[in-house]
Amino acid sequence: MKKLTITETARFLAERDDFLIISHRRPDGDAIGSSAGLCCGLREMGKRAYLLPNPQITDKFVPYAEELYAPEGYEYGCLVSTDLADEGIIQLNAEDLCGKVELSIDHHPSNSGYAENTLVLPEKASCGEVVQLILKELPCGISKKTAEMLYFAVATDCGCFRYKNTTAETLRAAAELIDTGIPSGSMNKKLFMTKSKGRLLLEGQIISNMEFHMDGELVIAVVSDEMIAACGATEDDLDDVAVIAGQAEGVEVSMTLRQTESGWKASVRTVDYANANAICAQLGGGGHGMAAGCSMDCDVEEFKRLLLEAAKKVWKQA
Amino acid sequence: MKKLTITETARFLAERDDFLIISHRRPDGDAIGSSAGLCCGLREMGKRAYLLPNPQITDKFVPYAEELYAPEGYEYGCLVSTDLADEGIIQLNAEDLCGKVELSIDHHPSNSGYAENTLVLPEKASCGEVVQLILKELPCGISKKTAEMLYFAVATDCGCFRYKNTTAETLRAAAELIDTGIPSGSMNKKLFMTKSKGRLLLEGQIISNMEFHMDGELVIAVVSDEMIAACGATEDDLDDVAVIAGQAEGVEVSMTLRQTESGWKASVRTVDYANANAICAQLGGGGHGMAAGCSMDCDVEEFKRLLLEAAKKVWKQA
Repeated sequence: MKKLTITETARFLAERDDFLIISHRRPDGDAIGSSAGLCCGLREMGKRAYLLPNPQITDKFVPYAEELYAPEGYEYGCLVSTDLADEGIIQLNAEDLCGKVELSIDHHPSNSGYAENTLVLPEKASCGEVVQLILKELPCGISKKTAEMLYFAVATDCGCFRYKNTTAETLRAAAELIDTGIPSGSMNKKLFMTKSKGRLLLEGQIISNMEFHMDGELVIAVVSDEMIAACGATEDDLDDVAVIAGQAEGVEVSMTLRQTESGWKASVRTVDYANANAICAQLGGGGHGMAAGCSMDCDVEEFKRLLLEAAKKVWKQA
Repeated sequence: MKKLTITETARFLAERDDFLIISHRRPDGDAIGSSAGLCCGLREMGKRAYLLPNPQITDKFVPYAEELYAPEGYEYGCLVSTDLADEGIIQLNAEDLCGKVELSIDHHPSNSGYAENTLVLPEKASCGEVVQLILKELPCGISKKTAEMLYFAVATDCGCFRYKNTTAETLRAAAELIDTGIPSGSMNKKLFMTKSKGRLLLEGQIISNMEFHMDGELVIAVVSDEMIAACGATEDDLDDVAVIAGQAEGVEVSMTLRQTESGWKASVRTVDYANANAICAQLGGGGHGMAAGCSMDCDVEEFKRLLLEAAKKVWKQA
């Protein structure tokens, strides 16, 4: 594996043609936006470039990607990935392309170096910003159309500039994209301020049924199949559902219990001092200090009791 | 009234001392943050400068302002306002200061020109950005402490860079503030990603009780005194409560009914084609095309019926 600089990556792209761009499974805004932005830029240079349609793309991302989809039977000359840290999570219809990626453009510090050539900028909040820096060194620059794709990538990966990964450089990158005249205001409204009816109703149900313990520092939320059905929610509506209960001020530990085929799965999140992994490990699960999970085939009330007991055992331990 | 440039405003401040800074009633983040940022900057130049405590300040803003409060009996030499468009909305304990403001620093295009000297930059998303431009021309520049106050102002007035008033310049202004090393990530979490328990529970109740009409394009939400009490919510928790129902995808008109002493008050919001004013005017209320209101002393079910009827009368009229 060869590590490339931004300039070398630009030259690599300028020297090749007939690109196929892929990303990771369960694609987020950065996966779609960085691929689509790169694709638009390459086309504006007169290259042939397509995205391999991602079978798991969520509805709201489709408008950004659809027109760039490779036609059936397209034969690529150069396979490029964006935002793909490891081939183990390659998009589902690209598993036969493992080992064939010529260039990986990424921002994950964990990039496994699976591609022949790699550009990783781990200090960037999104892969979109990496693509932006490459295109700026190419004759295409950043057109309004490309900027729209890249803004979509940059803004979604940092929660529209709210998350901790947002740096001054993230804001400057977005400012440069807005300079091209993209409708960032209406994009924000659609992407970050609108929820499907099913999602909104489900949030209402989750919040209304939260149970507080430990003087309000621990909250348990339940997401049952019955609730999902009653709200008309879909799989897409369950994204990030574990953050809802943790929004309450003063909550240190939130536990979101999602019904599975045979029982329940808990997503445990902590804010400051508590250790999510220490809680879940007691029930055969695991994860990180601030986010962990465990599953159990039992009744929901029994699961709640076990989780609460596990939390109490390690409560306020260093 | 004399209109000042940024440079003239900087000179005006440099030439004076013993400042008292005031803002508007029901202060938002920009009112508090722009006042506090200006106050910090002036102090770093060796000036005496204080804020007049705002009696309606919400709890989460207090940490930013408290240490800058004028002591009792403080005699000011120069009265300055920030983010105050009109003396009609001057902070409640400053009504006797009407007509005495020497300098108004603002970003509202509607600034009424009540002060002797005025700097209004209507293209700015926040008054914080106006203060930032002034301080950059003064020897104090923007310290980390000042930057924290101003970031608070800038970020709250544009919904943490989500609202339509966010421009490329807003992002660049915020980037410059982050360059000073402020903890913008944890500020965002506290200001924009955390809700009081009362607010969160109330949102759950509001969402769970929404009623959809007109093929899902019209939604009615109710906020009764009973719901507020049951959730342990306070007056602060009711900020912007009218936007909750309007978050649902496909909703064109949202009507949020808030219980009053003698009946109900509706806040009507529209997204695209519908006219909120045309709906509310039929019931003796009014406002703008996208946000209007009306009140009625009647039963909530009767009020819903009347509002729905009014909406149907003007539905999809140009």
